[in-house]
Formats: sequence, structure tokens, C-alpha cells
Amino acid sequence: MPESAFPEWIRRTDATLSNALPDPAVAPQRLHAAMRHAVLKGGKRMRPLLVYATGTALGAADASLDAAAAAVELIHCYSLVHDDLPAMDDDALRRGQPTVHVAFDEATAILAGDALQTLAFDVLANAPQDAPQRVAMLAELARASGVAGMCGGQALDIDATGGRTKGDQRHVSDRDDSTAGVVRPKNDYGFVPLPFSLAELERLHALKTGALLRCAVRLGALAANADASCCAALDRYADALGLAFQIRDDLLDIEGDAATLGKTTGKDQAQDKATFPALLGVPASRARLQELAASMQAALDSVDADTHALAALAHKAIHRSH
Amino acid sequence: MPESAFPEWIRRTDATLSNALPDPAVAPQRLHAAMRHAVLKGGKRMRPLLVYATGTALGAADASLDAAAAAVELIHCYSLVHDDLPAMDDDALRRGQPTVHVAFDEATAILAGDALQTLAFDVLANAPQDAPQRVAMLAELARASGVAGMCGGQALDIDATGGRTKGDQRHVSDRDDSTAGVVRPKNDYGFVPLPFSLAELERLHALKTGALLRCAVRLGALAANADASCCAALDRYADALGLAFQIRDDLLDIEGDAATLGKTTGKDQAQDKATFPALLGVPASRARLQELAASMQAALDSVDADTHALAALAHKAIHRSH
Repeated sequence: MPESAFPEWIRRTDATLSNALPDPAVAPQRLHAAMRHAVLKGGKRMRPLLVYATGTALGAADASLDAAAAAVELIHCYSLVHDDLPAMDDDALRRGQPTVHVAFDEATAILAGDALQTLAFDVLANAPQDAPQRVAMLAELARASGVAGMCGGQALDIDATGGRTKGDQRHVSDRDDSTAGVVRPKNDYGFVPLPFSLAELERLHALKTGALLRCAVRLGALAANADASCCAALDRYADALGLAFQIRDDLLDIEGDAATLGKTTGKDQAQDKATFPALLGVPASRARLQELAASMQAALDSVDADTHALAALAHKAIHRSH
Repeated sequence: MPESAFPEWIRRTDATLSNALPDPAVAPQRLHAAMRHAVLKGGKRMRPLLVYATGTALGAADASLDAAAAAVELIHCYSLVHDDLPAMDDDALRRGQPTVHVAFDEATAILAGDALQTLAFDVLANAPQDAPQRVAMLAELARASGVAGMCGGQALDIDATGGRTKGDQRHVSDRDDSTAGVVRPKNDYGFVPLPFSLAELERLHALKTGALLRCAVRLGALAANADASCCAALDRYADALGLAFQIRDDLLDIEGDAATLGKTTGKDQAQDKATFPALLGVPASRARLQELAASMQAALDSVDADTHALAALAHKAIHRSH
């Protein structure tokens, strides 16, 4: 069973993160406690699992992947802390726990997110790889996290969200898009139709969610010195995985259970968020998920290595209930 | 005149930053415009000047220092965007311009700060130095920016600020310090006495302001492959410079002119901020500045290189009017 390695990889991730995070008994205690709250209170550790599954498939030892696995998870955690802020998604619940600005305060949540991002680069700069590999991994993490990746996708998502979200300081008149101020009727799926195409929505999520998942796969491949054709196949796997992950996320927001999810449901529709169900409807979104599952398997079949753990992660992304 | 190189170094910094920042005509335009607003609307470029002054004194070419100079400035700019947020210092004016959350909106300001931090590491990961030097520079930037540096200092500053700042979500009852809720009388200098010593205040600023100024000097030294004794002398220079810079900042908040400064004055006292004048009084703060000037010169005298540009920057830090 390829999943049998997952608990050990999660244990390694948590141990690396706990060691890297600052001591909550040392000043500034509030910042340190907030950082630990953001990182150590649960989480699926999907990105670290991708680092380990990719790296070990290509011959790297677990211990050589710890820094990369922790770094990509720190970027993910910082983005959640900032996305949950009142001025952003205004979420009070995350992983079944109060979000950082609720458990602490808004200033501390902003700073904790900032410091978690820095820590990601700090941890990766001290990875055990040779300097040229480490530089390539640092450049990859920066590219995936920034305007051409996660941050850019988050900004596109904000721009695409209809109306004014709770806590958002922007007024409709400030917005650039031509639909600002126009009340749009619901479509056949019960959603307000989005002002853009499926291709545009896929681009948004390729950046917002996909870039960091792809980065996790790439960090594993870079740590293992994978060749170019292998990297290309893994990119195809990772791109399909990122999209599948997001579609499943959108479906869970509609169909999921808040207790199982550990976060508020139904928020996407309430905020007229750009989602796949809103654009395609639920049945077509489910069908798209199945297509992506086939794409992922085809990509993995072309890699000359034991990719069972990566296949198990694909299955997990498509069938997860939280 | 050593200052004669400064305009060219500032021009190089601005050109590198402008090239590295994302195109404001490309989506997400609002994020890109906010990032450019945060970085390209003025600024003394003190940190880039320190990189060039240190690196060229030790034999590096200007072009080899561009990435490091831009990277440290991007970290500085991101910190200003987040410090100005309503939940932090709640500042509307910076460098004579509206702050990012005022010119755009709060969500965009949070994201722009995040993306500027990422861009700093991206730019430095692509510096022209050999991989081992680049890794050392990236590790240095991460350490100086994180919990053991700038972010940690900012958190200590928040913890040290008396009372509740405007827009701050925290209540006095949430605070850890034993003085919470106690109304403290003003001291002989007209300030509410701070609950800590000069040594603690110096530690706060050694992190908040000092760490990144020291990092600028170190990046210049690392780029030039400086030897250990030279680095030790430059650290002494940088540590004194960081403290002098902060004391001058505190004095300008009391004595400066908002129009010249390009930001609001008198805020430290209104917010019971931890400052040197609040702890020592104005005359002793001025005397401390003179001592630091002598320390900086002594440190530079022990470096076997032409350190006139670094001496000019020390003079600038101590005598600046904005």
C-alpha cells in the first residue's frame, strides 16, 4: 500500500515544522504562538506529501526532503492566515480551530503570516542539497509563491469575486471590471454567472492553488536531480492535480459538512466566488474531475519510476471529504 | 566626494526594481499597480546605498550588486506596506503619498506586501553570484527579515506600545504585559514611561530596524567575498548605524516637519510608542547619536578599504531631515 508511508511523512513534516518554528516561551511570545497555531493545528500536509512522494519515487532519501516539504507547507500556511483576514475572506474557522486573527488579533495575524513566509525561505536556504540545487529550489519556491503564482492567483480571485465581501474595504465603484454595480441574475445552476470563461477560471486556479502544488512536485524532483523528460511528465501530473484539488474544494463548499471540513461551508456562493460549479454546474464539475484523474494516471504512467504514492495522492485529492 | 556615487546607485536601484516589478498593464493589474506604488514612489534607498557602498569598497562591481540592493529594498518596502495597515500603525501618508491600503484597498495592500516579500527572494535567487554565495545571501536575507530580525522586532514593538492603537483589534485585557490596564503618569520628559530598560529598547530596534540595515551591509560584503575580520568590523558599523537611524527617526517624529518627512509626525507619543526620547529625553538621545557616530567611524577606520561612502551614509543617517 503506497499510503503506508503517508503517516511517517506527515510525522517528519510536523517534526521539521515544530523544530523550525520559534519557541513560544521566548519573546515576542504572541507572534511565536500565533505562528505555531497557524502551522501545527492540523492540516492535510498535501504539499509535503507531494514532495516526499515525488522525491522518494526518484531515489531521494526522506531526510533529504524534510526542508523542502516544510518550506512549501510554510508558504501554504502563511497564505491561509492572510486569506482568512477580515479584509480578505473574513473566515473565523480553519481546520476546526479559530483562525489566527480570531485566536490572537489582526496585527499579530498579519505579522505571523509575514514571518511564516520568511521562515519558508530560511528553512529551504538551509536544505541539505548542494548550493546549485538549493538555489534552483529557492527560485522555484519564490516563483510559485509570487505574482506569477499563488499571490497572483489570489489577486485574480479577489478581482473575480462578485459584489463586496464582508470586511472588504473596497467599494463597487472602485472595481475595474465592467460588471461592477450591475446586479446579475442567477443562472440555471442557481449561481450568479461569472464574468469569465472556463479557460480564465482554470488560469486563476492554476495560479492560486496549482502553482504551489506543482512547486511541491518540482521541489521533490529538483531534490532528486530528476531529468527533463521526467520533470515534464510530473508537471502534467501536477497541473491536473492542482485543478482537481480546486474543483473538489469547490464541490466540498457546496456539498461538504462544516464539522468534517473544519471550516465554514457555503461561503463561495454567498460571496459570488469564482468556482467551477458556478460556471459548469455540479454534474459537469464532477465529470471534469474524472477526466483529470485519467490525465494524472496517464502522466504518471510515462514516468519510469514507482509512482504509486503519487497515484494515491491523486486519488486522495479527488475523493477527499475535507 | 563619496556622495557623488549616490545618485547613480539610486538610479540603478530604481531601474532594477522597476524591471523586477510586474507589469501594471497585465492582470491582476490592481495588485501590480499597488506593488509599484509601494516601491517606486520615492524612498531614501538607504539599504541599497549600503549594499553598493559596502560592496564597491570591497572591490565588487556595481552590476554585481544590483540584485542584492533591490532585494533588501523590496523587503523594506513590503514591511512598510504592512506596518501602515489599519490593524498595525494605521498610517495614511508615506513618502508624501497615500499609503497602499488608502490608494488601493486593504486586501490589495496585504497581498502586495506578501508579493513584494516573495519578489525579494526571487530577485536574490537570480543574482549573478556563484551558487554558494547566493545561498549565503538568501539565508542572510531570510534571517534578517524573520522572527530573529525585522518581524520579531515589529512584534516586540507592538507588545511594547502602551494602550490601544487606532484600528488595533486587541483589547488591553488581551495583552500579556503586567502594565495592561494601568494608566501610567507622564515622566519628566512629558512621556509615559516605558515598561522596559534602555537595553531592551535597543534590542527591539536592533531587530526592527537594525537587522535589515545590517543585512544590507552583509549582502554587500558577501557579494564581494569579504574576509571574516572585515565582516566583523562592518557588523560593528552596521549595528551602530541601525541604532542611530532609529534614534534619528524618533527625534524626527517629535521635531520634524510632516511635509519634509512625507509622513505624519507626533504619532509615537500619541500611541505611547517605545522610543529613545520617551526613555532618555531629547538631549540624551542627541548625545547618544554623537556617541554612535564616533563608534561608526572607529569601526570603519579598522577596515582596510576606502570606506568614505559608508562614512557619508553614517553622516546622512545621523543628520537626515526625512
